[in-house]
Amino acid sequence: MAKRPYFYQDLSWPELRDLTAADPVIVLPVGTTEQHGPHLPLATDYLTAGTIARAAVEQVAPRALLMEAVPYSFNEHHMDFPGTITIDVHTILDYIAAIGTSVAHHGFRHIVLFNGHGSNVPFLDVAARMITNRANAVCALVSWWSLLKQEDVAWRESTFPGGMAHGCEAETSLMLHIKPELVEMDKAVRTIDEVQTSDHIWWDIMGGSGVFFQEFFSRNTTTGVIGDPTVATAEKGRQLFDVATARFAAFLDEFRQREIRPRKDLHAQPEN
Amino acid sequence: MAKRPYFYQDLSWPELRDLTAADPVIVLPVGTTEQHGPHLPLATDYLTAGTIARAAVEQVAPRALLMEAVPYSFNEHHMDFPGTITIDVHTILDYIAAIGTSVAHHGFRHIVLFNGHGSNVPFLDVAARMITNRANAVCALVSWWSLLKQEDVAWRESTFPGGMAHGCEAETSLMLHIKPELVEMDKAVRTIDEVQTSDHIWWDIMGGSGVFFQEFFSRNTTTGVIGDPTVATAEKGRQLFDVATARFAAFLDEFRQREIRPRKDLHAQPEN
Amino acid sequence: MAKRPYFYQDLSWPELRDLTAADPVIVLPVGTTEQHGPHLPLATDYLTAGTIARAAVEQVAPRALLMEAVPYSFNEHHMDFPGTITIDVHTILDYIAAIGTSVAHHGFRHIVLFNGHGSNVPFLDVAARMITNRANAVCALVSWWSLLKQEDVAWRESTFPGGMAHGCEAETSLMLHIKPELVEMDKAVRTIDEVQTSDHIWWDIMGGSGVFFQEFFSRNTTTGVIGDPTVATAEKGRQLFDVATARFAAFLDEFRQREIRPRKDLHAQPEN
Amino acid sequence: MAKRPYFYQDLSWPELRDLTAADPVIVLPVGTTEQHGPHLPLATDYLTAGTIARAAVEQVAPRALLMEAVPYSFNEHHMDFPGTITIDVHTILDYIAAIGTSVAHHGFRHIVLFNGHGSNVPFLDVAARMITNRANAVCALVSWWSLLKQEDVAWRESTFPGGMAHGCEAETSLMLHIKPELVEMDKAVRTIDEVQTSDHIWWDIMGGSGVFFQEFFSRNTTTGVIGDPTVATAEKGRQLFDVATARFAAFLDEFRQREIRPRKDLHAQPEN
Amino acid sequence: MAKRPYFYQDLSWPELRDLTAADPVIVLPVGTTEQHGPHLPLATDYLTAGTIARAAVEQVAPRALLMEAVPYSFNEHHMDFPGTITIDVHTILDYIAAIGTSVAHHGFRHIVLFNGHGSNVPFLDVAARMITNRANAVCALVSWWSLLKQEDVAWRESTFPGGMAHGCEAETSLMLHIKPELVEMDKAVRTIDEVQTSDHIWWDIMGGSGVFFQEFFSRNTTTGVIGDPTVATAEKGRQLFDVATARFAAFLDEFRQREIRPRKDLHAQPEN
Amino acid sequence: MAKRPYFYQDLSWPELRDLTAADPVIVLPVGTTEQHGPHLPLATDYLTAGTIARAAVEQVAPRALLMEAVPYSFNEHHMDFPGTITIDVHTILDYIAAIGTSVAHHGFRHIVLFNGHGSNVPFLDVAARMITNRANAVCALVSWWSLLKQEDVAWRESTFPGGMAHGCEAETSLMLHIKPELVEMDKAVRTIDEVQTSDHIWWDIMGGSGVFFQEFFSRNTTTGVIGDPTVATAEKGRQLFDVATARFAAFLDEFRQREIRPRKDLHAQPEN
Repeated sequence: MAKRPYFYQDLSWPELRDLTAADPVIVLPVGTTEQHGPHLPLATDYLTAGTIARAAVEQVAPRALLMEAVPYSFNEHHMDFPGTITIDVHTILDYIAAIGTSVAHHGFRHIVLFNGHGSNVPFLDVAARMITNRANAVCALVSWWSLLKQEDVAWRESTFPGGMAHGCEAETSLMLHIKPELVEMDKAVRTIDEVQTSDHIWWDIMGGSGVFFQEFFSRNTTTGVIGDPTVATAEKGRQLFDVATARFAAFLDEFRQREIRPRKDLHAQPEN
Repeated sequence: MAKRPYFYQDLSWPELRDLTAADPVIVLPVGTTEQHGPHLPLATDYLTAGTIARAAVEQVAPRALLMEAVPYSFNEHHMDFPGTITIDVHTILDYIAAIGTSVAHHGFRHIVLFNGHGSNVPFLDVAARMITNRANAVCALVSWWSLLKQEDVAWRESTFPGGMAHGCEAETSLMLHIKPELVEMDKAVRTIDEVQTSDHIWWDIMGGSGVFFQEFFSRNTTTGVIGDPTVATAEKGRQLFDVATARFAAFLDEFRQREIRPRKDLHAQPEN
Repeated sequence: MAKRPYFYQDLSWPELRDLTAADPVIVLPVGTTEQHGPHLPLATDYLTAGTIARAAVEQVAPRALLMEAVPYSFNEHHMDFPGTITIDVHTILDYIAAIGTSVAHHGFRHIVLFNGHGSNVPFLDVAARMITNRANAVCALVSWWSLLKQEDVAWRESTFPGGMAHGCEAETSLMLHIKPELVEMDKAVRTIDEVQTSDHIWWDIMGGSGVFFQEFFSRNTTTGVIGDPTVATAEKGRQLFDVATARFAAFLDEFRQREIRPRKDLHAQPEN
Repeated sequence: MAKRPYFYQDLSWPELRDLTAADPVIVLPVGTTEQHGPHLPLATDYLTAGTIARAAVEQVAPRALLMEAVPYSFNEHHMDFPGTITIDVHTILDYIAAIGTSVAHHGFRHIVLFNGHGSNVPFLDVAARMITNRANAVCALVSWWSLLKQEDVAWRESTFPGGMAHGCEAETSLMLHIKPELVEMDKAVRTIDEVQTSDHIWWDIMGGSGVFFQEFFSRNTTTGVIGDPTVATAEKGRQLFDVATARFAAFLDEFRQREIRPRKDLHAQPEN
Repeated sequence: MAKRPYFYQDLSWPELRDLTAADPVIVLPVGTTEQHGPHLPLATDYLTAGTIARAAVEQVAPRALLMEAVPYSFNEHHMDFPGTITIDVHTILDYIAAIGTSVAHHGFRHIVLFNGHGSNVPFLDVAARMITNRANAVCALVSWWSLLKQEDVAWRESTFPGGMAHGCEAETSLMLHIKPELVEMDKAVRTIDEVQTSDHIWWDIMGGSGVFFQEFFSRNTTTGVIGDPTVATAEKGRQLFDVATARFAAFLDEFRQREIRPRKDLHAQPEN
Repeated sequence: MAKRPYFYQDLSWPELRDLTAADPVIVLPVGTTEQHGPHLPLATDYLTAGTIARAAVEQVAPRALLMEAVPYSFNEHHMDFPGTITIDVHTILDYIAAIGTSVAHHGFRHIVLFNGHGSNVPFLDVAARMITNRANAVCALVSWWSLLKQEDVAWRESTFPGGMAHGCEAETSLMLHIKPELVEMDKAVRTIDEVQTSDHIWWDIMGGSGVFFQEFFSRNTTTGVIGDPTVATAEKGRQLFDVATARFAAFLDEFRQREIRPRKDLHAQPEN
């Protein structure tokens, strides 16, 4: 494997220094270490985020640089399942914000958190704000599913909402494409009927309820899955991967052009 | 004004004690103190959240209890505008979580954060999780706009997305219905063209972009408004208010019935 | 109800901006949500603080502005009584300090925390120092009872010390004047004999012991009251209200004139 | 110097273990390192607190044990004067609370913080509450001046209020008695006229204003003193020392007898 | 690449669950993202730690499991060099402790932090204590160089101390063995003479001074290197790698056998 | 006892101010309050550190100033033994850092933490870094044993490693020299055999293992001792004291001369 000119941590400090002139977007994949049912590895979320991010950055490099993924984040609601690692609320916020402000300290001005873990969303939303507010840079949050359109998943077989929630048709398909050696399809179990139903509360990567609610996973599933992984295929995964990559690459190119305007002070101006 | 039997803080401790048997949903409105353009008061977000919440609780009482609204929250990105109050990231999380866990300590098992401030969303999402994970209760987050459907705003005149973003057609209309004495329509200014455009980043109460991004407001508006308040009317506000109230009341009745299932421990069980 | 020109949150940001020139004192009432015996509502402390503060500000406006009251604060020692809400030690300090430093950020230079809850005193004392030390402003703490003189309560019937401690002759009288609909005098119970006696430890709004000590309330009262609310009357409440208001108004006018002198650096001055 | 049987840190762990049976009061002196004018040492506050505490504990031992004094605490408002050490707000609270909860962990049930620094008061008040609320013990706060009566300082020559505020007649007299070698009376300067006057804000060890307010010391004094140290004498110091010691000893004996009653849970009792 | 049965994150939760019975040691590599001179990549420390850890775990599996490396940690003193990422003091402690306590939550009882970054040492020392003290497990810290003996580096050409400090003969050799494609030997610069000399303060992987001291790197080096990378060779790296791996593998086998004895309570035992 | 011109807290603020010109090294002894076996007092670690530090500072004064020792620090792993006080992880870091940054605020530029407690090492290492990174000063950590050479303890009778670990030959000898009245040699018990043996984990003041590991003391000793105090003598203590003092004094003189070089910014320099 050769040095990847788009990979932040493959570079030396003088190389990084010289790259600031090109004003690349810095992409930080954030995953987690979390149970994903009996058929998927704990690594799922940082593998999906990291792999899609790499593919997108490769498409737009040198206009973007990819950082090493963060493999540990908040997961309290999954702790009844062996193997899950959770970082507490305040720590994960400060950890991500510290990475972003460090990057900005070195002169990069556009930063993207690229997310692979559903429950990371509010944390990374807050962390992105911390970075934007504190640093001389702007920071956006993109989850790999957040740029998808309904037409992108025309192949969908599982029910909406709920069929694509966790360790599901979508995540399993993606992993079959990215890391088939880590998927054990014979252990995949459709897990939808255990989940408490509600007119107001649901989650699906293609659209969640207006009500935000997350309780301990073990209240709603004994497999760890929510959704239907049995209909997953590598081909669906390839399509998901390609479209997520393309959309993210397009975003990167637009975001890099985003003007960072000066703030305006709307206060009455003091005399001295 | 008489004692309101549905209002948490109007009650004495023995009254509260006796009410736990009925298992009411506890509703905590959360607003903020924040600039809303030259025509709206700083109180806007806690007035809208508090008033809709009160109307919904009145409809379902005694199956719900209303708490006094939280009037101060996170607002760093609005600090260029006079009057805005901001609570820092970690403090607002712990403040809201402390209220929820206190409520749960007294035996209430269903808690709802009812939100009136767009930027509260990730913070209250996290806080609701803190409450659900730590207390013997479940906590959900609802923003007043989050239960609306497109058909509910058929009267909309401002453009989508962006016309209903901040101090906009929707918020101004609501305030014209709730607190007309605090609205100065002659000062309302349509503010859309100043906002940096993007294919990937936008915000509207009827649907935001998949990319999450929030920068200092003063970069995109000098009025403090984002959207078009000039097309606001009290009648639109009345309709918004009624539908938001009805939908929230329906949610409360469903949520109160939500089963709080026991957690399951999926670990290998030790011998002792 | 009309817009109140003295009420911070009724105003828009340009109105707030223009008011800084007049250099008003900003008054933040801080109460709590806490049991006050079987005859008083949980809201007692923010209602008393908020109502007295409003009356005083009305007297001196436009030389002062009133903010929305903080309704939740530290109360760990009351948690054995249903309904009480407690915010943990560090959070309430940072919450109050954040409000004060936000206000100072907008150019206001004299800030007063106006307190209605006995146990808020050390917390608000610390928070006021945080604001004064960090911001370009000065912040003072006043509790509604702290400006009273013995002659102001010549009508007192309960014993000193201890008769005016919590849910007592004074607080109940105040509430009978301010919010009679929330007082149930038939449930008021004199609660003094349960309290552990001491030559060195006591609390009364007209003077506490030199020793500072606060333990769980349930160790000393089963009604939640400490003191004698049975001798409370609306007329005593009116007198309390009037004198507290007058004294606070006088303080506001003096405090507004308080010079904020430059700090002096007493260190040896370095050459460069 | 021999081993002091009443001094916590002179003892070994088995000695400490055996002493729990006698249920002694644990006394923790808390001072600070802070400028006290040109004539007094930075150590003043921990020397006065530590010495009075030792004398009182000697009088009542073995019914009390003395701990090593804490020499560093909050002092932000004195940082313009060389030598002052300040511990930030949250840290000093947790530091003191940790000592107290450690002591309680070992089975001691009555703890007293004995204070020598005016600005420690709100911090130690909060810390004492943290200890009482978290540990199986009760904790009180006594400042050496807080038990004095007006008759105890009949010899007073400086004006009230303000003559006994900081590095003043009282503190200087005490130090002339306790550590005369550290007092340079020829450098003592009466410093009262520089201080901004107010009808509502003042501080004196014999009684402060109802308004709590503390700003940077350098705004009101260039000597570091507030009060009149020029009238201090060793004889006044002896009298202060003796009376403070006697009163504190009497308190210790009473406090040791204070019953630690069980908490009562006033909630409706659940079935299981 | 196949699923690695020894790699924590390759496994599913039921696989992890079943592995607890074998009581494997959990190995968490901790590196950093930090400048390592002009010839080495920012990834150096997590690559060295991760690769040696993997090799050692492969030797002893299934008696140990390897976790994904932590790529971001404390680095404030390197921030003058582009690319370096720093996590603040409190956050990195809590982040590592959270991973360890999560692992212990799942029933693993022996945890090893395997370190590749010199300045991680005190942080991981503290974090390991947090894990051991809080969890039902024990946690040790090993740095890849900490198990080496002088005889292991008989090939050393650079001076002792200081020749093997940062981006040096040792680290460069290791990287030439592990990831030669990321090393640019033509850019390696010997950097020793710039470093301020001291009889008491020095650092070398084969033995540091008794005085602990770390200042900003840019005060002592403009290349980012401290030491002599020009004498590095892949063969030295292979020897380093092999011996570090062998020693670490031996430690893992011993540590797994370490008895976790019950704590003893040395307090006088209370009657009830 | 006369005023000690080298003792920070004996001085007044003008004296301190004037001393900054001489640029003395500031020495802060840090001990702890911790069980040291049945024969030594809880004060051991702050007495040893404080006494050696005082002797060294006396030798080099006025080129160094001594501060009052910190008597309370981290000790979680000793809490099974009566009397031990522990400060939690984050608090002790911030407490020490606050003292150091306060000292630097007053213009002192060389600060030394002089340590007497083994488990303080990683905490003080981190705290020293916090001070160096945040303040305009440099801070080093020295433990009294860290400057010793093997030849300095030629009189050693206890086994290596482990004979000099805690409450051992070295600490007991030192105390017999410094504070014989606090040592009860008849209660000293050799405690080595209880300790779990390991090829990789050990601790001795003359050299610890490369693996860092600390578990609850009560798992390895019921006396509280680890090592052999029965071979301690006052003469060994005198020798230890003299050599530690001499080496520390030499370090102080060198450290005072250490140049505090400007940082260099290695980033590409922006145009404006």
